[in-house]
Amino acid sequence: MNTSQRLDVTFAALADPTRRAILARLASGEASVMELARPFAMSQPAISKHLKVLERAGLIARGQDAQRRPRRLEARPLAEVTGWLVGYRRFWEGSFQRLDALLDEMKTPEKKRARKKR
Amino acid sequence: MNTSQRLDVTFAALADPTRRAILARLASGEASVMELARPFAMSQPAISKHLKVLERAGLIARGQDAQRRPRRLEARPLAEVTGWLVGYRRFWEGSFQRLDALLDEMKTPEKKRARKKR
Repeated sequence: MNTSQRLDVTFAALADPTRRAILARLASGEASVMELARPFAMSQPAISKHLKVLERAGLIARGQDAQRRPRRLEARPLAEVTGWLVGYRRFWEGSFQRLDALLDEMKTPEKKRARKKR
Repeated sequence: MNTSQRLDVTFAALADPTRRAILARLASGEASVMELARPFAMSQPAISKHLKVLERAGLIARGQDAQRRPRRLEARPLAEVTGWLVGYRRFWEGSFQRLDALLDEMKTPEKKRARKKR
């Protein structure tokens, strides 16, 4: 897949509230399919179908444990979508006052940018 | 539509290369349907269908000129998607070296943040 095709499948995967909720859950750590299914009052097959879409987009991957086969969140597609959005920064940047706070938050990541002390 | 529903239609609208190309074109200014159709070697009805999807997501709107009925890019859905991605910052942030440059760029918008001179 090229970048455009990856954006296609990533955006499509993100266009669903259950799949976004699964990602939100995985943002706080690995989880098995059973653990993922629990809060959604959904059958495991229904969840598995959503997981397949997320996996195809590279948004999740299988963790180490061969027994539990936990899923974990993968950064790359989120980074690519972010990269795409940066191209439209001048549009979204000025549109809301609350984005000011949001951008300030973006500008001061916890780690990493210690070299840029103000 | 609530925020989640808006994210659904926005992400779905963005999951197509032609629609992303239309947005890229509109990022440099308003354009009529005819002007939008030209570079894509697509029929006007085909383009109109894509425009409808973008309009439904609120990503584009009609400009002032009643004759040309130009389309223009709208910031709000892009801002909401950006807001959603900020929640996953710690994932995409560390994933690529090139994101460093990208974030630096994000941290220094042209206007607005003059109050934070370094």
